[in-house]
Amino acid sequence: MAAITIFGKGNMGQAIGGNFEAAGNQVTYVGSHDQVPALGAIIVLAVPYAAAVSITESHTDEFAGKVVVDVTNPLNFDTWDELVVPADSSAAAILADKAPQAKVVKAFNTTFAGTLAAKQIGNDHPTTVLMAADDADAKKALADALDGSGLVTMDAGSLKRAREMEAFGFLQMTLAASEQIGWTGGFGIFK
Amino acid sequence: MAAITIFGKGNMGQAIGGNFEAAGNQVTYVGSHDQVPALGAIIVLAVPYAAAVSITESHTDEFAGKVVVDVTNPLNFDTWDELVVPADSSAAAILADKAPQAKVVKAFNTTFAGTLAAKQIGNDHPTTVLMAADDADAKKALADALDGSGLVTMDAGSLKRAREMEAFGFLQMTLAASEQIGWTGGFGIFK
Repeated sequence: MAAITIFGKGNMGQAIGGNFEAAGNQVTYVGSHDQVPALGAIIVLAVPYAAAVSITESHTDEFAGKVVVDVTNPLNFDTWDELVVPADSSAAAILADKAPQAKVVKAFNTTFAGTLAAKQIGNDHPTTVLMAADDADAKKALADALDGSGLVTMDAGSLKRAREMEAFGFLQMTLAASEQIGWTGGFGIFK
Repeated sequence: MAAITIFGKGNMGQAIGGNFEAAGNQVTYVGSHDQVPALGAIIVLAVPYAAAVSITESHTDEFAGKVVVDVTNPLNFDTWDELVVPADSSAAAILADKAPQAKVVKAFNTTFAGTLAAKQIGNDHPTTVLMAADDADAKKALADALDGSGLVTMDAGSLKRAREMEAFGFLQMTLAASEQIGWTGGFGIFK
C-alpha cells in the first residue's frame, strides 16, 4: 500500500484515484484551489499539460525522489492536428527536465477515463496501463500500487517511449473525436 | 474488384495479398529480382522502408494517379530505440514527397503480419486496418478492396496522422521485441 497524491479532480483524476483506492492505497486529491498537502510517494499529475508544467515548476524540490506520473496528452486543442510539444520530445521528457530529481513515469495517457473507470476497453477487454520511465523501480512501484485494481500494467520501456505513447494517445483521441470509436473504446492490448 | 500490385513477397506482402485475394481482387506480387509488370490501380509497398524509397524513386511516373499504400515501420533496427525518419515527418510523407502525383495511403503498419493473416488480434478480436491519406477517394478504394476480406478498416484522417501511426507501430514492435506481447497480439481497436 502506498500514499498517493493526485493533482486533479476531473474525470481522469477520479478514474485513476478510484483504481488506486480499489487496490488498497491511501489517495489524497488536490484541486486547483486547494492547499497542497504533504505529498505521497507517488504523485499523479491528472491535469492538462500546461497545468502539469506549472505544478512541476512550483514543486521541483518537493518532487525530488518521488514517483511523478504524467498522464497528459499535450494536444493543440484548437486544431486537433498536432501536439504542442516539440516533435523530437514529449510532455513527459519536458516535465522530467523541469524536475530532474523526480522519477517521472508516463502512464494512463493511452487509456480514456471511461476505460480506467470500467477497467475494460469497449466493455470487452481488460484495460492495460502502459508505463514508460527510465527508473525501473518507479515503474515497479506504480505497477505494485495498481495490483488488485483490476487494471493490467505493462512496461513500455524507457522514458523516451513517452513520445510514442503520446502519439498513441493523440491518435486514439482523434479517432474518438471523429466518431470512429467511442470514449469507452479505443486501443486494447492483447498479449 | 481491383487489380492490385504488391511489391514484396515476405510475411507482410503475403498476408496483405491474401486478404485482397479473399475479397475477390486480382493480386500480382513483385519480388526484388522480378521484372515490374503493368501496375494495378492499387500498389502496396510491402517492403522495408529503404526499399520503399528506392522503388518509389524508380517509379515516380508510373505511380502518378495510383493509390500507393505504404506499410512500413521505419525503425532503426540497430538500436530499436528510434525511427530513421525525421521526428516531424513520417515514412509516408517522405514517399508522398517523392511521388507527388501518387495518392499515398498509410495502412497495415499498425498490424503485425500474423494478425493480418489470422484476421484477429490475439485470436480474440477482429483486426482493424487504420488508413491515413489526404485523398479520401484513395482511402475509400482501399477500404472497398478489403471489403469481404474479414479485416475491418478505419479512417485515421489525413496523411499527417501517418506520423502517429508510425509511432503506434514502433511502440507495438518494441513491446513484441521485449516479449511484453506476442507477434500475434498487439493493439486491437474497439468501437
